[in-house]
Amino acid sequence: MSQVVILINLKTYGEGLGRNAHRIAGAAETVASESGALIGVCPQMVDLHPLAHHFNVPVYAQHVDGFAQGAATGHTSAESIRLAGAVGSLINHSERRLNLAEIDASVRACEKNGLTSVVCTNNVATSAAAAALNPSYVAIEPPELIGSGISVAKADPGIIQGSVDAIRRVSDDVRILTGAGIQSGDCVRIATELGTDGVLLASSVVKADDPEVVLRDLVSQL
Amino acid sequence: MSQVVILINLKTYGEGLGRNAHRIAGAAETVASESGALIGVCPQMVDLHPLAHHFNVPVYAQHVDGFAQGAATGHTSAESIRLAGAVGSLINHSERRLNLAEIDASVRACEKNGLTSVVCTNNVATSAAAAALNPSYVAIEPPELIGSGISVAKADPGIIQGSVDAIRRVSDDVRILTGAGIQSGDCVRIATELGTDGVLLASSVVKADDPEVVLRDLVSQL
Amino acid sequence: MSQVVILINLKTYGEGLGRNAHRIAGAAETVASESGALIGVCPQMVDLHPLAHHFNVPVYAQHVDGFAQGAATGHTSAESIRLAGAVGSLINHSERRLNLAEIDASVRACEKNGLTSVVCTNNVATSAAAAALNPSYVAIEPPELIGSGISVAKADPGIIQGSVDAIRRVSDDVRILTGAGIQSGDCVRIATELGTDGVLLASSVVKADDPEVVLRDLVSQL
Amino acid sequence: MSQVVILINLKTYGEGLGRNAHRIAGAAETVASESGALIGVCPQMVDLHPLAHHFNVPVYAQHVDGFAQGAATGHTSAESIRLAGAVGSLINHSERRLNLAEIDASVRACEKNGLTSVVCTNNVATSAAAAALNPSYVAIEPPELIGSGISVAKADPGIIQGSVDAIRRVSDDVRILTGAGIQSGDCVRIATELGTDGVLLASSVVKADDPEVVLRDLVSQL
Repeated sequence: MSQVVILINLKTYGEGLGRNAHRIAGAAETVASESGALIGVCPQMVDLHPLAHHFNVPVYAQHVDGFAQGAATGHTSAESIRLAGAVGSLINHSERRLNLAEIDASVRACEKNGLTSVVCTNNVATSAAAAALNPSYVAIEPPELIGSGISVAKADPGIIQGSVDAIRRVSDDVRILTGAGIQSGDCVRIATELGTDGVLLASSVVKADDPEVVLRDLVSQL
Repeated sequence: MSQVVILINLKTYGEGLGRNAHRIAGAAETVASESGALIGVCPQMVDLHPLAHHFNVPVYAQHVDGFAQGAATGHTSAESIRLAGAVGSLINHSERRLNLAEIDASVRACEKNGLTSVVCTNNVATSAAAAALNPSYVAIEPPELIGSGISVAKADPGIIQGSVDAIRRVSDDVRILTGAGIQSGDCVRIATELGTDGVLLASSVVKADDPEVVLRDLVSQL
Repeated sequence: MSQVVILINLKTYGEGLGRNAHRIAGAAETVASESGALIGVCPQMVDLHPLAHHFNVPVYAQHVDGFAQGAATGHTSAESIRLAGAVGSLINHSERRLNLAEIDASVRACEKNGLTSVVCTNNVATSAAAAALNPSYVAIEPPELIGSGISVAKADPGIIQGSVDAIRRVSDDVRILTGAGIQSGDCVRIATELGTDGVLLASSVVKADDPEVVLRDLVSQL
Repeated sequence: MSQVVILINLKTYGEGLGRNAHRIAGAAETVASESGALIGVCPQMVDLHPLAHHFNVPVYAQHVDGFAQGAATGHTSAESIRLAGAVGSLINHSERRLNLAEIDASVRACEKNGLTSVVCTNNVATSAAAAALNPSYVAIEPPELIGSGISVAKADPGIIQGSVDAIRRVSDDVRILTGAGIQSGDCVRIATELGTDGVLLASSVVKADDPEVVLRDLVSQL
C-alpha cells in the first residue's frame, strides 16, 4: 500500500501561526520520521517560506489563484508559493471556495509549477466533479462532519464510501483524502480502509496541548 | 435524431427587456412552430412570468440559487422561477459564475422542482466536471469564441469536440449545447454534427433588426 | 413629522412567495390606508410585476446590480425592476452583500432610473460610509439584533443612536431605517424616537399567521 | 509639509517576485535615503517576511482579511502580516475588492494590530465612503487612469480634486494617495499639489529596466 498522507491545515488559528507553526512543523517532522507516514502542514502564506526552509516536512499553501497573472493585486500566484518552497496547495477549501473555472485554473497552475493540487469538496457529486478536473488529490469534507465532533470512526461512513465510488467512476488516478471527522488513529485507519489515501485535518492537531502526542496517535494504527 | 435545441439568452440587453423580450419570444414561437426546433428564451427575472404566460415557448431563468432557502434576500429560489412559469434555468453562466458547491446545489434545486438545468462551462475540463454533477445540459462557452465574431462553422471546432468527448467519458445522459460562436444555420448544423444537441446564443438574435429572420436562418439547415 | 416607513422584506421565504406575497401585499395596502404609514413590500424578483400591478403599495426589489449593462447574464438591471413597476430596491442586504464600487453603482443606477435606494449596513462605521454614497435611505441592521428575538424596544439602542449620529455627520439628507430587532408597535415608536424614519423587517410579518394583525400592531403607536 | 509617500505595488508581476522584489526594495531603500521620501513596497504575501527583514523599507501587504478569525483557511489575518514584519496593508484594491462590511473589518483589524490601512477607491463617492471608515489612507484609483498611459500631470485632474474635496468633508484626518496615472516626477508633484500625501503606483516601477532610475525621477521635484 502507498504511503498514508496526513495533511494538517493550520487555518488562521493563532495556535498555528509563527512560533506555533514551527512547533507543529517540528512535531510533524518527528512523527513522520518515526512512522513513515507523509505528514504535511498547510500554514498561512507568511509562514510558507520559514517552514519550508527550517523543517524537513512538505509544506502546502491553503489557497492558490490560477488566474493570478501579473495584475492580480492581493492574489496568490502558484509561482509565488513554489518560490517560497511549498510543494502544493489546498484549493477550494470550504472556507475559501472558488468558482468552477477558478478551481480548474488553480489545478492547471499547480501542474505547470510542479505543485501538488488538493481540491476540497463537500459531497458525492462535487467530489466526482473535482476528480474530472484531474487534480493530484480530492479531499472530501462533508459539512455534516466538519467541526462536529463526530468522527468517521463512529459515524456512518457512507458519504466517504459514496464519494470514493463516484470519484473512481471518473478517474483511476486521482488520490483521495478524508477531510473531516478525523480525531484519532481509529479514524485514520478507517479512512484508509474506505479507500482514501489519508486525511486532512485541523483543530485536533493545531489546538492540541501537545501536537506530537496527537500525531503519534493518528499514525498509531498504520 | 432528437429535437434540436436553440436557447436565446436575452442577457440584460435593453433589446431583450420588456416589450423587446415579447417581440423575441413571439419570433421564437413562430419559428419553432414552423421548424420543429425547440426554441427557448432566457429573459431577465421580471420577464419570466409575462413571457411564460403570453407565449407558447419554454422560458428559462438566467440564474438560480440552490441555497436560497428562506433567508436569502436578493437571491433567486428555484421555487420562485417555477411558480413564475419557467421550465428551467441557466446555471454558472460566464457572467454569473458560482462556486462548485453552489452549482451542485442549483442543479439539485432544479431537479427537486422539475426544472431543466443548463450548466455553462468554459473548457474541456470544466465541461467534464459539470457533467459529473448530472445536470440536464452542459453548455460549453469557450471564452475564445464568446463575442469574438468567430463562428464555430469556421473556427477549429476542436474545443467543442474535445468537450463532447470528455463529457461522454463521464456521462452518457447529459445533453450538450454549443454555447458560443453561433451566428448562422451553418453554425447550428456544425454544432449538431459535433455531437451537441443544440446551441445557446445571445446577441446575434437579441440585437438583430428582425429576430425572426435570424432564427429562420439558424434553423434553416436542420 | 414625515410619514413613517415600514418596509417588509419577504426574503426567499415560501410564506412570502406567489399567493402568499399577494396576501401580505393586501394586508400592507389595508393597514397603510388605515394608518397613513408608508408600507412597502420587497418580494422576490418574479413577484415584482404582479404585486406592483395588483396592489396599491410601493414595491421594492431585494437587490439591484448597478453594473448590469447589456452583457450581465443572471444579474438584475435597474431598468428591469423599474419596468416591472418597482419604486426602489434594497442594496447590500446582509444576505446579498456587494463590494463598495458595486454599492455605489447600484445607488447611481437607482438615481438614474428614478428609483429609491435603500442601502443596508451592519454597524456605525459602515452606516456613515453608506451615507457618503448619498442613497435615499440607509437601513441599519446590527448583526447582534438580526433574527435574535431581541427587540430594540428592550435592547440597548446605542448602536442605532450611534449610527444615526454618524450618518448625520456625513449627510443631513439621507433618510434612515432601523433594520433589525423590530417586533411590535413599541419597537417602531422607539425606532422613530431614535431619529430614524421607520423600519425594515421580515419574519415577524412574513411568517405571521395573520400579517394584517402584526402590521396593525406595528403602526399602533404612531 | 509632511513626508511624501510613494507606495510601490508589486502586484503578482514576475518582475516583482522573489529576487526581483529584493531588487526593487533595494532601490526603494536607496532612493528613500537620498530623498527623504517615504517609499514603501507591497509584495506578494510570501515576500513580506524576507523584504521586511532584509531592507530598511516599510513593507505592506496587498490585502488583509478582517474576518480571518481562527477558521478562515486561505485567508490572511492581520496578525499574520504583522508577525511577518509588515507595517500595513492595501485594502479593497480594484483587483481584490471587498464588500463594505469586509473593508470595515479589515480597517479595524489593522487598527487593532497597529498596522497602517490603505483603502483603495474608484471615484469621488466611494472615496468619501472609505474616508467615513476612518482608515489611515484612502488611495484613489480612477479606472479611467489605471493602466491607461494617461498621467495625472496631463489629464484633467478633476477626479482627484473632487475626491480630495469629498474626503475632506467627511474627515480631516485621513491621508490620501493618488493611485493611478503616476509616471514621472511631474505626476508626483501634481499629486501633492492637488492635496494628496503621495502616490500608489505599480508597473512603471516594477517593470522598469532600472527601478532606481524611475524612483529617482519620481522624487525629483519634491
